[in-house]
Amino acid sequence: MSHGQQDKLKQQLWTGDYYNEGVTHDHDGFFDKLKEECGVFGVFGHPEAAHLSYYGLHALQHRGQESGGICTSDEEEFNYHRGMGLVKEVFTNERLQELKGSNAIAHVRYSTSGESKLANAQPLVFKYREGDLAVATNGNLHNAMDIRKRLERLGSIFQTSSDTEVVAHLIARSPYDQLEDAVREALREVKGAYAFLFMTRGKLIAARDPNGLRPFVMGKLGDAILFASESCAFDAVGAEYIRDVQPGELLVLDQNGMREERFASKQRQSVCAMEYIYFARPDSDVDGINIHSSRKRMGKVLAAEAFVDADVVTGVPDSSISAAIGFAEQTGIPYELGLIKNRYTGRTFIQPSQELREQGVKMKLSAVRKVVEGKRVVMIDDSIVRGTTSLRIVNLLREAGAKEVHVRISSPPFMNPCFYGIDTPSRNELIAAQKSVEEIRQAINADSIHFLSKEGLLEAIGSDSTDKNSGMCLACFDNDYPTMADTSEGKSSEGLVESTK
Amino acid sequence: MSHGQQDKLKQQLWTGDYYNEGVTHDHDGFFDKLKEECGVFGVFGHPEAAHLSYYGLHALQHRGQESGGICTSDEEEFNYHRGMGLVKEVFTNERLQELKGSNAIAHVRYSTSGESKLANAQPLVFKYREGDLAVATNGNLHNAMDIRKRLERLGSIFQTSSDTEVVAHLIARSPYDQLEDAVREALREVKGAYAFLFMTRGKLIAARDPNGLRPFVMGKLGDAILFASESCAFDAVGAEYIRDVQPGELLVLDQNGMREERFASKQRQSVCAMEYIYFARPDSDVDGINIHSSRKRMGKVLAAEAFVDADVVTGVPDSSISAAIGFAEQTGIPYELGLIKNRYTGRTFIQPSQELREQGVKMKLSAVRKVVEGKRVVMIDDSIVRGTTSLRIVNLLREAGAKEVHVRISSPPFMNPCFYGIDTPSRNELIAAQKSVEEIRQAINADSIHFLSKEGLLEAIGSDSTDKNSGMCLACFDNDYPTMADTSEGKSSEGLVESTK
Amino acid sequence: MSHGQQDKLKQQLWTGDYYNEGVTHDHDGFFDKLKEECGVFGVFGHPEAAHLSYYGLHALQHRGQESGGICTSDEEEFNYHRGMGLVKEVFTNERLQELKGSNAIAHVRYSTSGESKLANAQPLVFKYREGDLAVATNGNLHNAMDIRKRLERLGSIFQTSSDTEVVAHLIARSPYDQLEDAVREALREVKGAYAFLFMTRGKLIAARDPNGLRPFVMGKLGDAILFASESCAFDAVGAEYIRDVQPGELLVLDQNGMREERFASKQRQSVCAMEYIYFARPDSDVDGINIHSSRKRMGKVLAAEAFVDADVVTGVPDSSISAAIGFAEQTGIPYELGLIKNRYTGRTFIQPSQELREQGVKMKLSAVRKVVEGKRVVMIDDSIVRGTTSLRIVNLLREAGAKEVHVRISSPPFMNPCFYGIDTPSRNELIAAQKSVEEIRQAINADSIHFLSKEGLLEAIGSDSTDKNSGMCLACFDNDYPTMADTSEGKSSEGLVESTK
Amino acid sequence: MSHGQQDKLKQQLWTGDYYNEGVTHDHDGFFDKLKEECGVFGVFGHPEAAHLSYYGLHALQHRGQESGGICTSDEEEFNYHRGMGLVKEVFTNERLQELKGSNAIAHVRYSTSGESKLANAQPLVFKYREGDLAVATNGNLHNAMDIRKRLERLGSIFQTSSDTEVVAHLIARSPYDQLEDAVREALREVKGAYAFLFMTRGKLIAARDPNGLRPFVMGKLGDAILFASESCAFDAVGAEYIRDVQPGELLVLDQNGMREERFASKQRQSVCAMEYIYFARPDSDVDGINIHSSRKRMGKVLAAEAFVDADVVTGVPDSSISAAIGFAEQTGIPYELGLIKNRYTGRTFIQPSQELREQGVKMKLSAVRKVVEGKRVVMIDDSIVRGTTSLRIVNLLREAGAKEVHVRISSPPFMNPCFYGIDTPSRNELIAAQKSVEEIRQAINADSIHFLSKEGLLEAIGSDSTDKNSGMCLACFDNDYPTMADTSEGKSSEGLVESTK
Repeated sequence: MSHGQQDKLKQQLWTGDYYNEGVTHDHDGFFDKLKEECGVFGVFGHPEAAHLSYYGLHALQHRGQESGGICTSDEEEFNYHRGMGLVKEVFTNERLQELKGSNAIAHVRYSTSGESKLANAQPLVFKYREGDLAVATNGNLHNAMDIRKRLERLGSIFQTSSDTEVVAHLIARSPYDQLEDAVREALREVKGAYAFLFMTRGKLIAARDPNGLRPFVMGKLGDAILFASESCAFDAVGAEYIRDVQPGELLVLDQNGMREERFASKQRQSVCAMEYIYFARPDSDVDGINIHSSRKRMGKVLAAEAFVDADVVTGVPDSSISAAIGFAEQTGIPYELGLIKNRYTGRTFIQPSQELREQGVKMKLSAVRKVVEGKRVVMIDDSIVRGTTSLRIVNLLREAGAKEVHVRISSPPFMNPCFYGIDTPSRNELIAAQKSVEEIRQAINADSIHFLSKEGLLEAIGSDSTDKNSGMCLACFDNDYPTMADTSEGKSSEGLVESTK
Repeated sequence: MSHGQQDKLKQQLWTGDYYNEGVTHDHDGFFDKLKEECGVFGVFGHPEAAHLSYYGLHALQHRGQESGGICTSDEEEFNYHRGMGLVKEVFTNERLQELKGSNAIAHVRYSTSGESKLANAQPLVFKYREGDLAVATNGNLHNAMDIRKRLERLGSIFQTSSDTEVVAHLIARSPYDQLEDAVREALREVKGAYAFLFMTRGKLIAARDPNGLRPFVMGKLGDAILFASESCAFDAVGAEYIRDVQPGELLVLDQNGMREERFASKQRQSVCAMEYIYFARPDSDVDGINIHSSRKRMGKVLAAEAFVDADVVTGVPDSSISAAIGFAEQTGIPYELGLIKNRYTGRTFIQPSQELREQGVKMKLSAVRKVVEGKRVVMIDDSIVRGTTSLRIVNLLREAGAKEVHVRISSPPFMNPCFYGIDTPSRNELIAAQKSVEEIRQAINADSIHFLSKEGLLEAIGSDSTDKNSGMCLACFDNDYPTMADTSEGKSSEGLVESTK
Repeated sequence: MSHGQQDKLKQQLWTGDYYNEGVTHDHDGFFDKLKEECGVFGVFGHPEAAHLSYYGLHALQHRGQESGGICTSDEEEFNYHRGMGLVKEVFTNERLQELKGSNAIAHVRYSTSGESKLANAQPLVFKYREGDLAVATNGNLHNAMDIRKRLERLGSIFQTSSDTEVVAHLIARSPYDQLEDAVREALREVKGAYAFLFMTRGKLIAARDPNGLRPFVMGKLGDAILFASESCAFDAVGAEYIRDVQPGELLVLDQNGMREERFASKQRQSVCAMEYIYFARPDSDVDGINIHSSRKRMGKVLAAEAFVDADVVTGVPDSSISAAIGFAEQTGIPYELGLIKNRYTGRTFIQPSQELREQGVKMKLSAVRKVVEGKRVVMIDDSIVRGTTSLRIVNLLREAGAKEVHVRISSPPFMNPCFYGIDTPSRNELIAAQKSVEEIRQAINADSIHFLSKEGLLEAIGSDSTDKNSGMCLACFDNDYPTMADTSEGKSSEGLVESTK
Repeated sequence: MSHGQQDKLKQQLWTGDYYNEGVTHDHDGFFDKLKEECGVFGVFGHPEAAHLSYYGLHALQHRGQESGGICTSDEEEFNYHRGMGLVKEVFTNERLQELKGSNAIAHVRYSTSGESKLANAQPLVFKYREGDLAVATNGNLHNAMDIRKRLERLGSIFQTSSDTEVVAHLIARSPYDQLEDAVREALREVKGAYAFLFMTRGKLIAARDPNGLRPFVMGKLGDAILFASESCAFDAVGAEYIRDVQPGELLVLDQNGMREERFASKQRQSVCAMEYIYFARPDSDVDGINIHSSRKRMGKVLAAEAFVDADVVTGVPDSSISAAIGFAEQTGIPYELGLIKNRYTGRTFIQPSQELREQGVKMKLSAVRKVVEGKRVVMIDDSIVRGTTSLRIVNLLREAGAKEVHVRISSPPFMNPCFYGIDTPSRNELIAAQKSVEEIRQAINADSIHFLSKEGLLEAIGSDSTDKNSGMCLACFDNDYPTMADTSEGKSSEGLVESTK
């Protein structure tokens, strides 16, 4: 990819033109959070593949609440069901029982709106010359549009807006008969971040992008092999974690067992740092590192970087609790539940009118007066996106009587949109891209503010930035997008450059 | 098409392997009726295109109750919504208002089961190199599977089991830029019965198969041009019928107005006779002939062919009422409501247990004791498929006290499956293909029976069988399938033969 | 009841203050029809009491579509389920199976709006000192409000707006232990039109008002005894009609069998004539007379009273079909389907905007152009309420090309509201109460009009008005309300007068 | 109440015969928790009374998830809506807008099953001689059944199984015209624990039981007066807490403002200790004491009572987090998220089969391996009911590698069922009523166990047990039921004794 092309892509990202939806989907009208795009789950060789997928998806529900789907198969069967809503809403026991077959791939998708989007629910299922094919993915392909245009010129039609359909076309057009050969060929054309699961009758394939941007783990339950976006899904089904799928790796399971192959040479490993900071569940391990523990260390490093004399430490629930505990442990300032989240809010909740909102109606988060009244409060949050949420929470604490509010953020300033599968607003909506740290402090009405340094973050996660094998993607903080860095030499990028002529 | 190929196709039809579903879907557990596959509706140039489509589909609801869909567009917009269920269940006013655009194509589909079939709901919507494309059709392509296999070998993927997707692929692979050129090319490859509507931004195309097997009419409402499977849809929206779309005709509407073109040379016209006998609504005109009136004439001809001295004439509601009135008028025997249909039965209705059924629980049809008790009854029905329904109705009448039951059927014996879009059971389930008329009489417990002769049917419809321009498809009665008759010379069939090598 | 009181009641009726709802609920925006209030069904001694009730209610669905309910019991059990919507929507097979017990009473209620009205769905179920009590009724008590006020003064509370709750209070406050004694006592206090079913563990009681205003029949299925508002419900479950419940009769069923008692002396029998004209199903017999046959005779008498030279006769579906057939048979003018009803309209249907309506969008009824074009049409309808519907239908026929439209109504002018259980508009909305026949003709744009005479109606039904035992209530036509006629002597009215002091 | 009567009541409680349902309703198949019966919310004098109630109920959702209801009124209006499910499921914005009126009472109810229970959803709404009456309550009346039997003997009928209907009958039968007089009279008859809200057109009344067993607070928002079961509901709507409703107090609000009256003399105050331990939200204050803070102190006292040398402290989410933080702060042992709760589980969730359960499928709670592996873990929980949940959680921790599991419970052993509104199992299901502490330790597979002492609990809450004005009900721990203690002198009990003769 040339510099000009890179700049163009970044330009799209920064202006918000890249993600189709354009807006983050904030159901509760309160939290201005980033949205993960998806979670995947796979089973090979278990008689209860559909039910395991159900419980696995349920454990991954935090990665996507818009739609869910399970496709099952074996040599004879090929069945699937997808629907809008939470996993528990999409599936009944009857539906699960109809999903016969000992192999399965399954998917949860984040929230957009509109029924017609059911077409985008995964796994996508196709028929091609070799028979039935199902595909599920977490991630984003940033050259999908270019490939898609090329395929359209060749006479392809598209029924979804999903990158996954592009890959299915590449597979179908490949000259190879064997699915693994066609997949390898297809993945050499695409560029981006992904954890892919492919399934045909009797065969299941898992593949992770060459930089390992999106998390992807392998486990086992008896003789069955499982795949998941996060290890918490294995705990949920009583399975054992084996290892992470390696960047550029292609794992093929069929009647002959599992073959461990590669479709791409080793690249600089670059796991998404936001998985550690915000997305993944505290009980998951990503690339061998536990999420809760790394967050707690972020809180400790944050305390070391920016101690403040205060009376209580409180975290914004739920994702900042671990960091707040770490901060409290490091400083000796008591950790308290100064902010309480209402668990019953949801999609169908009626938003208060502007008038009621001004009168103080809140639905999602409450400050606990008796805990914060007259106190100097350290408020730990994991990130600041637009800044509007932070302002609201600081004000909640002040209205509840907090004397001082010191904001400590367990990540560096979020300045650059992601195009590896995280739905981010455009650059000019990102407060850290527009304002200095002092300006942010004023904007959110805090007494002091500190963002965890990039070095502090890496130290906390335990990642060695000098080691090619344990790197992080920090592009949202430092504008260094791993898939663009080395494109001048990469073989796969050649194809890309060609395809975008 | 060679004789060998024809025979193979017929073989498939007769064994019931042709239609995927394999069974007719008899929701009510009573009527053993044929199922129409679909109804289509189109609007070009009306500000309320979505609402008109809603009311138009509603008038066509008898042609399909499984799913409904509307796609709207103009130069800027392209929107669609589809769903399972009746039109009134699929659409809310809010949904309709989101369907902006002054052009629309819309569709109702007959009943199958299973949520995953939503993917098959029409209009199907695709993106291809020229942009958005929507397609809706009523009918069936009998060489779709061959073309599909060829396309798969070329690397195409399929997401539905619909013939329509095959045509979309053909369009997308056509070298032509203009939709009408690509459509013309595509339709030359396919063989079967159809009323097609295609839509891109700013353009709408209507096409009817070269034999005119499926009905298709054009109307106008102010400056807007409308299309529908039946003229009753025009009455429902206050539009005026203009003319039938001609067999082999291609009508192109865009900003330059309407162009009347052809994609195929004139073939022997062969409108489906079952539309007159059973499918179409009594208030529709098909190819200029009113359905109610033609059915009434069937009753009169039937009376002439097989008079019987009796006390009352009754028709099986709803489709046989017109013929029964005609029979009564011709014979002077009083027409009575001897059978009453319960209007509130539907999909979710609980079927009675075998035990209750044996005790006499009925849900759908009642015989009126006071009308039939001690009487000699002429029972008019439109057709006999498996014979099970007829037996039940005759027995209903006998249990209500009918002294004699004389069955008169307003069509010839139904002996051959259809592959022009009617879901029929396999040949060995068709009672008339397995038994003589006398055997049928015994099987359904009637005192006498008569089927309208083929000549009588043509006379009643008013079709002149010697006129190439007003022919009927009677294949289900006489095994003469119009698209196979002249394949030895037809140009389009050459391509077909080629494609199936 | 004094004349002053009668006048006051009538005054309320005429001004529309009597019926709480105030408006008729015309879901489809087309038909301006009267609404029946309810249908009841009962079973004593059948192991499948709940399922029989389900099919029985289904056959009575035309009498009420708002809500449905079944209560079952035997010595041990007492279960019930009620819900809003059609019978098929309210019950699942699972629900029915939970309704254990060999006795049942069941109910369908006409359409109002609002969830909170579920409280009014019947059977109403109470606990009182003798245990569980369920009550279901069809009809209306016109002194319920007076009794209710008296009970309130005595400290009673009410949770519904139903008359039935009043009767339950009377039963609970009765000094008698045996349900039949308490019911007898309670019914002596109330005044109006009703078919009542009461049930406690092991006992079921049926009672019909002293004038027999509402229909009520008894049947049997094996050893089980059944009750229903109409005999069509017996046909639906394979049961046999035994006889009508007599006016003033109280039938008690328990382990000792059935006891036939009376709670009131014989009054002038006054079956609601509108049951024959419009409400009941054509296949039902009311007080021994078949509905279809009586309607057909109405058409014949109408033809005799007001012949007109014309080309076709058509009936407004569905209720006027029988009369139209009779008219055609009498005159020799051909009967045709000139008007077609769309069967798929329903509650959730989106009404067309005023603009679309003006453009001619219709949903419910179509005129068949080929049938009526250039013809002199006789249009048979059963009644005219406000006249708006009639105008619309006449115009439909004219727009479809009818040269002349002659309206023939198979009942006398509807001039007086009902307070025996039919939801009627106020007197000043009733066109026949406000205009002369000639003015009505003009208002509905007809070429000629005739209403069946009162004498013609009685002749057609076959009722002998001089016979006290086979009288009709014609109050809506002649202002002679049977329950008010003889109140000066009636014992029960004494109590009433007392109670209203 | 005589000792004999008390014993009989206790007997019923201990055998589980007292609570109708008999079982605790554990939707998630995991947590064996006590269930709160209800939450109430009231508004007097705010134009947005319905919307405020919606947000207020939402904040009280943890007190009941089965059904929700709001009744609004003012001088002209009286409207209500109730439904099954969460507040967000029961109400749409449209529904709320129909609930006109500036006063409101509202209710959430805990979970039972069965549609027919909608009749039990509150507020219950009645008509009586003075007009419309709505009642909502949290609590339980233990002499309701006796009063009900007496009322039935007097001819009353009951449509629900709710205590509230009993109180409505008492009000309706009271000779007093004014609601407050009738309420006062009625409350003198009933015995138990309650927070009552009554509403008629223009008047709202709040009353709390003489022992103050159930929490009940008063707040204000501008000129409007609000009531709620917990103060967190005031925070949710931006209202200010004023004070707790006093035991035995009757607050009357109408156009003349608020009158503070009493219906009962001062009794020993006895707030339910389980509100502090488990039920109330951490951000609520009950009788002036913050819940989170009191729980944290429970953890500290627990640490003082039963220190154990360990590596990590973890709390069972969500209710034990505060106590765990207190324990950790007191001991210096790090607090960690060793157990993670899945937030997406809910009513419709499919339970795993026995087989999958045995294979390790879990849905609700996960242990974090990296946190507990090889560690000595202190597991803090708030209470042990049957012991089954505790065993499961200890095993979860052991399976995740915990070397030792030390269980610390922040309340005394739960030995006696409650009859003040908490749904508890029968005595022989309560593990602490059946086993010694050492036996419990073995039963739940813990290395050590300690229950907070009664004195420690009181110290932590900050309640002075010698002060009649700040007492606690500890009956579930010490068998001392406050409403039975002093019945020999109590005036109200006289009536009760009389009524149960």
